[in-house]
Amino acid sequence: MYYPEPIAKLIDGFMKLPGIGPKTAARLAFFVLSMKEDDVLEIAKALVNAKRNLVYCSVCQNITDTDPCRICSDTSRDKSVICVVQEPKDLIAMERTREYNGYYHVLHGAISPMEGIGPEDIRIPELLRRLEDEEVKELILATNPNIEGEATAMYISRLVKPFGIRVTRIAHGLPVGGDLEYADEVTISKALEGRREL
Amino acid sequence: MYYPEPIAKLIDGFMKLPGIGPKTAARLAFFVLSMKEDDVLEIAKALVNAKRNLVYCSVCQNITDTDPCRICSDTSRDKSVICVVQEPKDLIAMERTREYNGYYHVLHGAISPMEGIGPEDIRIPELLRRLEDEEVKELILATNPNIEGEATAMYISRLVKPFGIRVTRIAHGLPVGGDLEYADEVTISKALEGRREL
Repeated sequence: MYYPEPIAKLIDGFMKLPGIGPKTAARLAFFVLSMKEDDVLEIAKALVNAKRNLVYCSVCQNITDTDPCRICSDTSRDKSVICVVQEPKDLIAMERTREYNGYYHVLHGAISPMEGIGPEDIRIPELLRRLEDEEVKELILATNPNIEGEATAMYISRLVKPFGIRVTRIAHGLPVGGDLEYADEVTISKALEGRREL
Repeated sequence: MYYPEPIAKLIDGFMKLPGIGPKTAARLAFFVLSMKEDDVLEIAKALVNAKRNLVYCSVCQNITDTDPCRICSDTSRDKSVICVVQEPKDLIAMERTREYNGYYHVLHGAISPMEGIGPEDIRIPELLRRLEDEEVKELILATNPNIEGEATAMYISRLVKPFGIRVTRIAHGLPVGGDLEYADEVTISKALEGRREL
């Protein structure tokens, strides 16, 4: 025996979460003991509720507590554009810009032959079904600017172009506030390639 | 609105834990969504159980699910020695050595005038009460080797010596597997001071 059972179980619980090893788990568990009981109950309830009450939106596949989700049921948005992102977090990041007023489609992953993830394993079939039904004029591919994201964007673009829909990819370039000195060659060459007249 | 409410609440919950900011909290929350429901329920239950079922041992002040705790009720241990540690985690660290066979006393902190923690705020009064009742011959001070730990050890040593009890402090020196080159001056001088004949 080292830890009393209730705390050992809590440490095991925390260790199931990503990036939390035995030391951090023990630190968190001991912190929980010093918390107010109400706060602990609230976290426990939030865990169960998040797991039980969230579903995937049947339209955009984003996680939501109402189906269709709040964005898909917002009729004030521009229904001619769909922005394709990999994860719900990416959708949130797009929404934070307050620049985009169309709808979304969340893939929940990217094509990655290395990890055995093919087009059928992410929500590409659902996207194609939407394109058949809805009057979409532009598809903005906002998958991540890495190998998997690029491959996914490429794949979708080839599939969708025959529908006669305009397919665009978000720009690559130097991040705002970044430093040319510390940017990698690929980013700089992409920034050069995508230069625009002022 | 950014996140659906159940996930926003879960993110808030995770953010109450130490060292978890909004980004990590979001990462953990999304991970929870991808977990099996049973696993999530288990973590939620462990949280509530740890908070509800753990008490402080009335003898050694360690956290425990039985009172007195398993160590204090183990009569095979040497009742002439008490080892004083700051936190339950330190007790676990001592137990791991399998070298110590006496009892413990957990202070739950150290004296720190900077943070306004005085001797009455940690479990020093409980320690003194034990020394009056029990037949203790040696008190090993295993508080941390930093300013607060040293001050606490000093303070307890002065209080306890009049009882006619032997008071010892764990040794300072180079950690095993360490490197002289990278050790700080204070540690090296302590190691030198505490040298032993071979």
